[in-house]
Amino acid sequence: MRIVVDAMGSDDHPGPDVAGAVMAAREFGDAIVLVGDRPRVEAALAAQDTAGLAIEVRHATQAIGMKDSPSAAAREKRDSSMHVGLALLRAGEADAFVSAGNTGAILAVATLRQTGVGRIPGVLRPALGVVFPIESKPMLIDNGANADAKPEYLLQFGQMGSVYVERMLGIARPRVALISNGEEEGKGNHLIKETIPLMEASGLNYVGNIEPKEFVRGAADVGVIDGFTGNVMMKTAEAVAGYMSDTIRKYIMAGTLTKIGGALARPAFQRVRAQLDPDEVGGAPLLGVNGVVIIAHGRSNAYAMRQAIGQARRVAERGIVAAIAERLGN
Amino acid sequence: MRIVVDAMGSDDHPGPDVAGAVMAAREFGDAIVLVGDRPRVEAALAAQDTAGLAIEVRHATQAIGMKDSPSAAAREKRDSSMHVGLALLRAGEADAFVSAGNTGAILAVATLRQTGVGRIPGVLRPALGVVFPIESKPMLIDNGANADAKPEYLLQFGQMGSVYVERMLGIARPRVALISNGEEEGKGNHLIKETIPLMEASGLNYVGNIEPKEFVRGAADVGVIDGFTGNVMMKTAEAVAGYMSDTIRKYIMAGTLTKIGGALARPAFQRVRAQLDPDEVGGAPLLGVNGVVIIAHGRSNAYAMRQAIGQARRVAERGIVAAIAERLGN
Repeated sequence: MRIVVDAMGSDDHPGPDVAGAVMAAREFGDAIVLVGDRPRVEAALAAQDTAGLAIEVRHATQAIGMKDSPSAAAREKRDSSMHVGLALLRAGEADAFVSAGNTGAILAVATLRQTGVGRIPGVLRPALGVVFPIESKPMLIDNGANADAKPEYLLQFGQMGSVYVERMLGIARPRVALISNGEEEGKGNHLIKETIPLMEASGLNYVGNIEPKEFVRGAADVGVIDGFTGNVMMKTAEAVAGYMSDTIRKYIMAGTLTKIGGALARPAFQRVRAQLDPDEVGGAPLLGVNGVVIIAHGRSNAYAMRQAIGQARRVAERGIVAAIAERLGN
Repeated sequence: MRIVVDAMGSDDHPGPDVAGAVMAAREFGDAIVLVGDRPRVEAALAAQDTAGLAIEVRHATQAIGMKDSPSAAAREKRDSSMHVGLALLRAGEADAFVSAGNTGAILAVATLRQTGVGRIPGVLRPALGVVFPIESKPMLIDNGANADAKPEYLLQFGQMGSVYVERMLGIARPRVALISNGEEEGKGNHLIKETIPLMEASGLNYVGNIEPKEFVRGAADVGVIDGFTGNVMMKTAEAVAGYMSDTIRKYIMAGTLTKIGGALARPAFQRVRAQLDPDEVGGAPLLGVNGVVIIAHGRSNAYAMRQAIGQARRVAERGIVAAIAERLGN
């Protein structure tokens, strides 16, 4: 297995990107290609013990930042670490590409056939899947690849998410639901209402429209939603979880007894935090592009990068791209 | 002040609806009109101490349930407690209407001029505002009155929300934001992108597009969003808060020391719960209809109903309807 890692992706690049790649190389024994500004990447590597690891560096003269316009950067920064890394994937010189960089730019560079791997034949729009960090680990798709969607896109998101969950979690007939503002007939916006008949006729294990409450209770393995609402939903979940943690901590620290109680209860809080931790989850797979592309959180630390690389190798190993091609292709 | 309360609204009607009305009548000294099935309402009243309170009962032969189709129920159940109650509001015999019933049905009955109070002249679509239960208590609007929106609707939601927050919270120039999937230029779906220039030209204190994270941190007093996404967002927030509480409790109860710690920290948890409690917030104002209409949670207990009635009287007192008419009317 040979995995390309964008060394210029994370907010604190190249430190976490490089350190995570080293962890992954040691743990999984894969070859890693780090793409980025060679002097900076090699300096970060020099701080690590890389003896016996198959790590190489490819130089890229440019880097795409979080503030860059995705479409402009995709068009103009042709020698960015994303472009160079995705060209390796396209050329078949690597099995997967991982980046913690600008999501919109990765989408743009990866989806274009000139710069990236293009779409799997038959796929209308690639979509970003994300694992919702509750115990049952359902997938929410789309998490923002497409701010505006059509019914036939949502249908494909359900199909691609279903393939992913089947192969990655070993669930034979994943329950696919549309996320909506209500379960009753007549609920949903136009998009949802027009997608329902497509889902019903799809052969998927479509379990209906569900509200976020049901999704959080584990009522579906794949929650399908347009990228705008999905992204707002995921960010709301993260924000509320963070707000609750902060508020609980604040009130616990406000009294002596509660402070002692908080100290005693710390192992319980740590378990909750570990479960909700986006670092544990790895990255978000970009499904529908013709290669394995995993997008890690911009705030990723080395461990989160390692998890994303581990996820990339599993996605490659389990043939998700070929399985989507078989399911959707003509 | 004379407030009409739908006695057949809440999931456990008429108990909580009647008990909450009695609490409100005692607390605020207002006259309350309870509308519903007279024998059942009077039986519930008999269980309460109503000495000296100005409570009367109006009979309605029908009730609209949570499972009823809103449009069909609005059309067909012409003698429902909602129809009878909203007719009193339209006739000027009451200052406000409060119901914990089927939101879609309240919307439908209230918005139609034949059955309810109709729209304020100039208002394109009424919207459901909801107080987001974080410390700064911002308003999220629309919380589901309109599953599909247009830019000019969102603009009015911002205007109506702004009037509400000005008058209810005493904030002179409320910060109005669009809730989006990113703050950078180019983020947002078509709807958001087309709404931005309207917001910029509106004279509102428009502070830009914000992500849910910023909204939860208190970056805006009014968060504007289409009703589908707004409803999914609010329900996600409730679901994640509930999930976190349950998970923390489960892990605390799993160990002896953590259990002791949890007991000591209980006052802190209670403060968090009280802050997030939707019962404290009251109900959601339906802004843009030509009268004061407050929709309480279906799960409301007596205290939540009392809070919603208290909110209704403040909305009436502070002339929100007239202020919206002045701001939006021609």
